[in-house]
Amino acid sequence: MSSLNANDGWTVTQNGFDPEGNRVFESLFSLGNGHFGGRGNHEEAYSGDSLPGNYLAGVFYPDPTRVGWWKNGYPDYFAKVLNAADWKPIHISVDGEPLDLATATIVSFERVLHMRTGELTRSFRATLPNGVTVDVEALRFVSIVRRHLGAIRYRITPVDADVSLEVSAQVNGDVVNQDSNYDEGFWDEVSRSVSEARGHVVLRTKKTAFECATAMAYEVRRNGQRLPITSRVEEAERFVASTIDVDAAAGQTIEITKYGANATSREMPADEIVGCCDAQLDAALATGFDELQAEHRAAWEHRWDISDVVIGGDPAAQQGIRFNIFQLNATFTGDDPDLNIGPKGFTGEKYGGVTYWDTEAFCLPFYLATSEPEVSKNLLNYRHRQLGRAIENAGKLGFTNGAALYPMVTINGEECHNEWEITFEEIHRNGAIAFAIFNYIRHTGDEHHLLDGGLEVLIAISRFWAQRVSFSEPKQAWVILGVTGPNEYENNVDNNWYTNVMARWTLRYTAEAISRARELDPQRAQAIVEGVALDEDAELDRWNTIAEGIHLPEDPERGVFLQQGNYLDKELLTVDDLDPAERPIHQHWSWDRILRSCYIKQADVLQGLLVFEDEYDLDTIRRNFDFYEPRTVHESSLSPSVHAVLAVRLGRLDKAHEMMLRTARLDLDDVNADTDEGCHITSMAGTWIAAVHGFGGMRVVDGELHLDPVLAPGWTSLGFQAQYRRAWFSVTATRTSLTIENRSDTTRPVWIGSTRQMVGAHDTVRVERSARPVD
Amino acid sequence: MSSLNANDGWTVTQNGFDPEGNRVFESLFSLGNGHFGGRGNHEEAYSGDSLPGNYLAGVFYPDPTRVGWWKNGYPDYFAKVLNAADWKPIHISVDGEPLDLATATIVSFERVLHMRTGELTRSFRATLPNGVTVDVEALRFVSIVRRHLGAIRYRITPVDADVSLEVSAQVNGDVVNQDSNYDEGFWDEVSRSVSEARGHVVLRTKKTAFECATAMAYEVRRNGQRLPITSRVEEAERFVASTIDVDAAAGQTIEITKYGANATSREMPADEIVGCCDAQLDAALATGFDELQAEHRAAWEHRWDISDVVIGGDPAAQQGIRFNIFQLNATFTGDDPDLNIGPKGFTGEKYGGVTYWDTEAFCLPFYLATSEPEVSKNLLNYRHRQLGRAIENAGKLGFTNGAALYPMVTINGEECHNEWEITFEEIHRNGAIAFAIFNYIRHTGDEHHLLDGGLEVLIAISRFWAQRVSFSEPKQAWVILGVTGPNEYENNVDNNWYTNVMARWTLRYTAEAISRARELDPQRAQAIVEGVALDEDAELDRWNTIAEGIHLPEDPERGVFLQQGNYLDKELLTVDDLDPAERPIHQHWSWDRILRSCYIKQADVLQGLLVFEDEYDLDTIRRNFDFYEPRTVHESSLSPSVHAVLAVRLGRLDKAHEMMLRTARLDLDDVNADTDEGCHITSMAGTWIAAVHGFGGMRVVDGELHLDPVLAPGWTSLGFQAQYRRAWFSVTATRTSLTIENRSDTTRPVWIGSTRQMVGAHDTVRVERSARPVD
Repeated sequence: MSSLNANDGWTVTQNGFDPEGNRVFESLFSLGNGHFGGRGNHEEAYSGDSLPGNYLAGVFYPDPTRVGWWKNGYPDYFAKVLNAADWKPIHISVDGEPLDLATATIVSFERVLHMRTGELTRSFRATLPNGVTVDVEALRFVSIVRRHLGAIRYRITPVDADVSLEVSAQVNGDVVNQDSNYDEGFWDEVSRSVSEARGHVVLRTKKTAFECATAMAYEVRRNGQRLPITSRVEEAERFVASTIDVDAAAGQTIEITKYGANATSREMPADEIVGCCDAQLDAALATGFDELQAEHRAAWEHRWDISDVVIGGDPAAQQGIRFNIFQLNATFTGDDPDLNIGPKGFTGEKYGGVTYWDTEAFCLPFYLATSEPEVSKNLLNYRHRQLGRAIENAGKLGFTNGAALYPMVTINGEECHNEWEITFEEIHRNGAIAFAIFNYIRHTGDEHHLLDGGLEVLIAISRFWAQRVSFSEPKQAWVILGVTGPNEYENNVDNNWYTNVMARWTLRYTAEAISRARELDPQRAQAIVEGVALDEDAELDRWNTIAEGIHLPEDPERGVFLQQGNYLDKELLTVDDLDPAERPIHQHWSWDRILRSCYIKQADVLQGLLVFEDEYDLDTIRRNFDFYEPRTVHESSLSPSVHAVLAVRLGRLDKAHEMMLRTARLDLDDVNADTDEGCHITSMAGTWIAAVHGFGGMRVVDGELHLDPVLAPGWTSLGFQAQYRRAWFSVTATRTSLTIENRSDTTRPVWIGSTRQMVGAHDTVRVERSARPVD
Repeated sequence: MSSLNANDGWTVTQNGFDPEGNRVFESLFSLGNGHFGGRGNHEEAYSGDSLPGNYLAGVFYPDPTRVGWWKNGYPDYFAKVLNAADWKPIHISVDGEPLDLATATIVSFERVLHMRTGELTRSFRATLPNGVTVDVEALRFVSIVRRHLGAIRYRITPVDADVSLEVSAQVNGDVVNQDSNYDEGFWDEVSRSVSEARGHVVLRTKKTAFECATAMAYEVRRNGQRLPITSRVEEAERFVASTIDVDAAAGQTIEITKYGANATSREMPADEIVGCCDAQLDAALATGFDELQAEHRAAWEHRWDISDVVIGGDPAAQQGIRFNIFQLNATFTGDDPDLNIGPKGFTGEKYGGVTYWDTEAFCLPFYLATSEPEVSKNLLNYRHRQLGRAIENAGKLGFTNGAALYPMVTINGEECHNEWEITFEEIHRNGAIAFAIFNYIRHTGDEHHLLDGGLEVLIAISRFWAQRVSFSEPKQAWVILGVTGPNEYENNVDNNWYTNVMARWTLRYTAEAISRARELDPQRAQAIVEGVALDEDAELDRWNTIAEGIHLPEDPERGVFLQQGNYLDKELLTVDDLDPAERPIHQHWSWDRILRSCYIKQADVLQGLLVFEDEYDLDTIRRNFDFYEPRTVHESSLSPSVHAVLAVRLGRLDKAHEMMLRTARLDLDDVNADTDEGCHITSMAGTWIAAVHGFGGMRVVDGELHLDPVLAPGWTSLGFQAQYRRAWFSVTATRTSLTIENRSDTTRPVWIGSTRQMVGAHDTVRVERSARPVD
């Protein structure tokens, strides 16, 4: 990806046209506003390789499960967020010749993502097959102020000839998902309409019956003069177009301003969606492009204000983390408890746009620190609202008494995934969902969340663990057999340390949470406990017995925890022993070979040490890091960030920096050769964790915020934002100082290393401070 | 299945029409001759529920693999023996009304499988919707004398009205496999022809390009008088029909004699298949139905002579084992080393008609004792001919140096199966294939088989084991990680005792076999060893080291071997603890629950104790039996027979009898509710093992035959045949005597219990003998 300009911290630039890399760039140049968004496809017709992608958050189709050998308990479908009707197309003909970058001769081409302003621009000069050369300047944004609206300003100028242009503004619903199991179409048309400079299609998803309107309006200007739209209209199944003819003299610029609006029956009654779009378009036309752009830019400025990370002296890291934060803000805004964070956000259709444990384990910490608590609370509410389905899901697997197993993959609470070793056995996700409740309360102080659903989720998950364990006679301990840990390169193992530790923690915390809820509000707490028919004596007694007696495999000689009971039986090679030609191993080795090897896909024991780092001394973390990291191939995008945090803690700053860059630039550098399918949105939150929890040393311990910044080699400064219990700290660390600016009305103490310091409202604390000593 | 008459040891009778059970009966009434065969579908048109099935041995289609989540190493296709053109249809109209048992009123109906003669008869009286009542008597066989030929005699008599009949003899190639992955058609037409009373279609399989001719000829008689065929012919894609009109007075019988011939390019050049069919039909017409029937019956008489098992006093067991032996003889005749024994034989399309480890572990002992050694040798040659593919298969999984992993499922040596836990991990199949070589030599004395391919197979398999083990530091032993044992209700376990024991045995036997081959023929042995580039010092040394140091998990307290290293960590319930409503568990429990339970699908440790029973004392077998059998749900058809043999050995005759009946009557009683898909052919060999190895006590020890019959409760006698090193013993045991008739020219010693007795050629030895004492 040598054509990416890595030297500007605020932009991602493609210099030069690159048809082979087009899908990768389309992923990188995606835009979204948490409600809709899509890939960086060209506005004009493009006959080259492309993955068209326009997505409406939460609008999905239940794609029938495809499987070779059915196992009892598999779900019937995989929910997939759909490729929806496209509001963007502006097809152009010049003297009858279609403008198509795949057939034109490209004189110059630049595509730029402006992260600061949330805008995508393209400028190119191209000579068409008929010899006409045109300059194009296109600018597009998906408004983060008006959740239904997108806008495009498209300027085309014939360079050296007078030409006749045909401009066709379109809404195109004739789209498919490329990642579908049976090549089915997912959409039916409900209605369509086009006249003059307005048009829309209304489509309904098959089976799920979401109705979605996609509408457009446009204006055309020449020399800044608005032209009357005397258009020809065209209609087809799921398609409308409005076409006008415009003459342009050489050097004369024709400007098309196009607005797109999307509305869905997920958000409002179906009979209001067309009206909603119309109102949005009317308002947009009345407001005008410049003002819409200005309000959008102002909103992005605020977003950056509260979420930016500034890295001095390392342009690659700076660009990487900004790109990650940009995408996280474009993917999820937290104002709708039915929405969550799909692994590809609005950048691709892979993984169906559905929810994984990534949300709780990786994304939540980012949103906790960079937005109001309501945003994170909606992530928790999402799971609480799906508790019934999680209990049903556990029921299908034989669990009773209100035990819940949250799905591995879901959009509406039902399980969608269908590999037994993952679907049924990667149960640690339940632990992450329980821990998120604690993590949210720890960060926000909002203990009342226990009464607002947290307790019910915790009890249901603890009931799951209490049934999922069994007692081993030889070990005289509770064991959890047949699981897959975070490291998916081991399947169906017994006593995954991480899973067992998460189970123990959940059982203990749930008991504490019940007590605390009773203190906060005895009546409501009692109602909750009665509502779930908790047999408090018997069940809590069993939870305690299990927590006290659960088997946590370890190797006393090495002083390390064991990823699973039999791990040491493996041949203990390291990544250095691998033939580089056989990496990544998941593309070169058969599955059995991977499974019986010692190689680790992503942090597993180390994930546990990250989650519970307060409970383990540095020597323990070091021994485990030194044992597992050399065996870790990091073939999950979620792996490097965890290692980065621990490496900082261990003072392994080179390793931490390597891991930080790997996660930060995963998509920009197409490290896993799969960015063509979309960006790794959830692992982007891991980048932020690496920066802020890792290098920034930010933690909440005993209800107070701790900071302990340390700079990677070559870094001159590190700045980040932290929302914390209604305070807002802007933190800047250099090699010799630490500055904490409290930008809120709330005074809070902050621990700087081992010193506790009150930071008053709107006050700034600056301490001189040499780099943290490194062991 | 109450309509099955269980009281006749030589027939299986369906009394009364049963449209719901029709698929089950179609399975039970299948006929075959080792080369082609099919299900007991009706000759006349039938619009009710039916699974049409006609199969040509070895003719397959590579059905593209369907999988939810692709794993590296999965095969591209699953080979499926095809539902082929049907030679049987004789469609009848009576006064213009189609004869269709689904629309007629059935007055009486009987369908009988005559196992002694290999014939299927149907007789019914039916009243058609137009009020006409007809009697039909149909008789059909698939000749075991003429491998390409089938014959039908179909008699129809109007009961009380003069009628006009329309008789349409057809070849119908418009067929599909119901068990296909993508609803693809598997056949293209090459040519077709029909004129007068002859017709054929030639079809070619897609991709594999097998050409297959299916031809028919027929005659029609009234009052025994052959009628001139003045037919109308009809053709369509893959279909031909010849139709004549015949008047029949009330009570007058019209007899249609139809012959079908099949020939394939698998057996002969493609341009000869039509000629082959024509010659077969010419010969059949010249020979006549009665004589064809007579020669077929004589051949079956001989088959029964050499393979029958007679059980006195237990009609259910008698009928069951005869049905099993009948099907085994109909499925495989051993005259073609490219053929093998599909799990459903010619009775259904499930499991693709391809080869599993069942062949070596279950079927081989039957064919060893009931046919000439050449038959069994062809089963061994099948694997030897596929050795190159097995080495390629191992190569795909990362093995080198000529290591072979035979496929889990194959028709041509390539792996077809695609569940990683089976395909890649159920590697014990390699052990069964190695052991079959030893077993064959032990039974036949044909040590030269080592030089004829046996040694190369053994070396390649030993090389696999030598690479598949790894050394465990904690155990200071060689371990085999990540396997699935015979009990498929545990996946990806470490140190499956059975697998490890098989590996150890293979390594040792291969070393012995190399020595023995050198004694037999030093030059050829040297050539073989050099041909596979065996580094004899280094490799045999490693094999010996592994065999000496392989980990064999056991529980010293209980004195049992452990199915896998972690087995005792499970909750050790028994089958009695299961809710009967939740059985079979594979239909009620999710896969993870099955995997972490202690419940066993089929013999695993006990399979090993059966294979190596000489090496373990009775107490050891008893302890393991008492530990594992109560935890075994027998949800594999291969399970009960193994338990039956061991139970006999332990004197648990009630248990043995229960297991014997379960395996013997599995299909007749539709025990697993899946006989509609076809019969469990390979497990039928298990029934024979239960009867002859189990109750008959037949074994080969140190190169000599041992007999030790014991009768199940209620049995008055047990008779069976044993081919053994060119001798042929007919054995009959009663409660007080044992008679051994040597029907061959070869004198051999036989051990009766602990007494060695020479049995001269054509001599009969009779000993008085009370029932074997039972401990």
